[in-house]
Amino acid sequence: MFIVDCDCHNYWCSATVLEPYMEGLFKDMFVRGERTGPRGAFPHGHRPWFHPEGFARHDVNPVEEDDNYLIMKAKHLDKYSIDVAILTGDEPIEASTLANPYYANALCKAYNDYLIDYWLPKDDRFWGSIVVAPQDPHLAAAEIRRLGGHPRIVQVLVSHGAARPYGDPFYHPIYEACAEMGLPFAMHLGGQGGINSTPIGAGPSTFFWETHAILPQTAMTHMASLIANGVFEKWPSLKVVVIECGVAWVPSVLWRLDANYKALRKETPWLKRLPSEYFKDHFRFSTQPLEQPENIQHLWAALEAMDGENTLMFASDYPHWDYDDVNKLHVPPAWREKIFGLNALDVYTRLPRPAAQAAE
Amino acid sequence: MFIVDCDCHNYWCSATVLEPYMEGLFKDMFVRGERTGPRGAFPHGHRPWFHPEGFARHDVNPVEEDDNYLIMKAKHLDKYSIDVAILTGDEPIEASTLANPYYANALCKAYNDYLIDYWLPKDDRFWGSIVVAPQDPHLAAAEIRRLGGHPRIVQVLVSHGAARPYGDPFYHPIYEACAEMGLPFAMHLGGQGGINSTPIGAGPSTFFWETHAILPQTAMTHMASLIANGVFEKWPSLKVVVIECGVAWVPSVLWRLDANYKALRKETPWLKRLPSEYFKDHFRFSTQPLEQPENIQHLWAALEAMDGENTLMFASDYPHWDYDDVNKLHVPPAWREKIFGLNALDVYTRLPRPAAQAAE
Repeated sequence: MFIVDCDCHNYWCSATVLEPYMEGLFKDMFVRGERTGPRGAFPHGHRPWFHPEGFARHDVNPVEEDDNYLIMKAKHLDKYSIDVAILTGDEPIEASTLANPYYANALCKAYNDYLIDYWLPKDDRFWGSIVVAPQDPHLAAAEIRRLGGHPRIVQVLVSHGAARPYGDPFYHPIYEACAEMGLPFAMHLGGQGGINSTPIGAGPSTFFWETHAILPQTAMTHMASLIANGVFEKWPSLKVVVIECGVAWVPSVLWRLDANYKALRKETPWLKRLPSEYFKDHFRFSTQPLEQPENIQHLWAALEAMDGENTLMFASDYPHWDYDDVNKLHVPPAWREKIFGLNALDVYTRLPRPAAQAAE
Repeated sequence: MFIVDCDCHNYWCSATVLEPYMEGLFKDMFVRGERTGPRGAFPHGHRPWFHPEGFARHDVNPVEEDDNYLIMKAKHLDKYSIDVAILTGDEPIEASTLANPYYANALCKAYNDYLIDYWLPKDDRFWGSIVVAPQDPHLAAAEIRRLGGHPRIVQVLVSHGAARPYGDPFYHPIYEACAEMGLPFAMHLGGQGGINSTPIGAGPSTFFWETHAILPQTAMTHMASLIANGVFEKWPSLKVVVIECGVAWVPSVLWRLDANYKALRKETPWLKRLPSEYFKDHFRFSTQPLEQPENIQHLWAALEAMDGENTLMFASDYPHWDYDDVNKLHVPPAWREKIFGLNALDVYTRLPRPAAQAAE
């Protein structure tokens, strides 16, 4: 089976790998300036919830930079016959937490250059996400235009943590650039510190496990906001990829959005369709961490209600603590080919079709 | 069928009805001080989302104070043969938004005295909720002890809007008083302004219909927080009633809570059971606004996954804009008697059993 992993984290041992890609003031700040962790740490406003075990799998222990690739190759790509890995970086999306948007943008640019220079040539299975700092949408748009034409870049990536919901007109220059370059806009869990709004409604919550369970609230907010603000009327080709937020909550939010829109649609006269219709055409959700109910039929009813056959895309979240290997994708058997790979081909249009598909 | 309406709003035409129940400084502030609306308005930090149609049904137009009861009687209680109406007030829960906890408490006390004096004697079907201002939990606990023994008071009520999630130890004096008086702790949608945390994760969202669709985030946060902080280990008899937050999202949150707790339970060593087990024993959800999917089986799968037969209680939200009359309760037929009334008897233990039940 053709397998696309839509959330594969390319780690580094030390953020100093970015130094060759920086210059001037921001290189000086990066090399000499204050850090949140050891000298090699990536600068970001750390979230106030500390993972009690660390984020990475305990059996992934790179010592030198190249180990990051070699371990991924052995323990993930080769082991599970992954055909395509969409690289999603790791700490770079945390640039969204920084008060200084110029520094945040410089860090993203350095990461993107490093990604293209170091990671993408390493393996034919690698395809890249360019990370942007959404707190200055015009700088972000410029970065999307700078690198968005690269043939192995397949999406624009930000954190779920944001200063305001992503449908706000403030962010629209980003979508204009995405549409222009033919790239989906992806958001990945993260960015829960610094200048960003508290990710928890009526929050902040207290413990890591508790907080992680309700972090999909950020995705609910962005999904509702992108739909309500008419982003998909302005850019009808735009696709949005929601990464690492679970999926079982989606129908419950769509039902409320549709009911409320029907009652009070006069607030948003630019909309022409039901929220759930925009959802089906424009949103794609990565599967990890897929919910694990006692009765799988309860999950499958939720997946059916969100048209999961067409809106879900497999993701592993390698090498994070709650990694889902390909054997953990408990979806209806008839949907497996689409969710494991074919749906991704419709979103990441630069990916080559597999031989069997290409022949059709 | 025996019908308990767990969310019936007793309106007033003017908050001046509270004047006879206030004294001293706070009466002076209430009579002479600044208001958010007309002179009769209840003081509160108004939420930044304005309902584009007003909150009340357009066919409910009281002119004099007694009309509030008479219209409710005609258009709701008598029309739908409601046996028990749990009165939930309306603006009083907004006291939670005020920076001055002494004033907030004085307003709640005045409302509670007015409720007992004016509303409860009006109709044998009426049972009351005492409203408390959670921003000073010790004052709230004193109010619970002052009136919680009244034979027709059946619960303690706050808004979903809060400065921090309700499991925080800051709030524990409230639960101690609830447990002591044998009353459930209920939270109702509201309190989204003033000193309270933004109710929307990564918020604030923009439009009313959009925001209302994702407001259950506040209930997710409080539910996770009450469980994680061990409130039900400290007060094993405590019941929590969640009002007006929809229900279809509940399983998705429980699945994540259980999975995360299993992985990282060392953070909360005081817990002895899975989050979903605390949920089933301690949480009850009012049904309104019940989700309306195209395929009712999708909703029923969610209800089954949350043990809806035992955790749901009918509510109308009379006379609000999204009022559900008894004919809108689309739940599995075999569960109707429990959801319409019998489940409420287990939570509101002061309610008399109906004749048929009493004879069993």
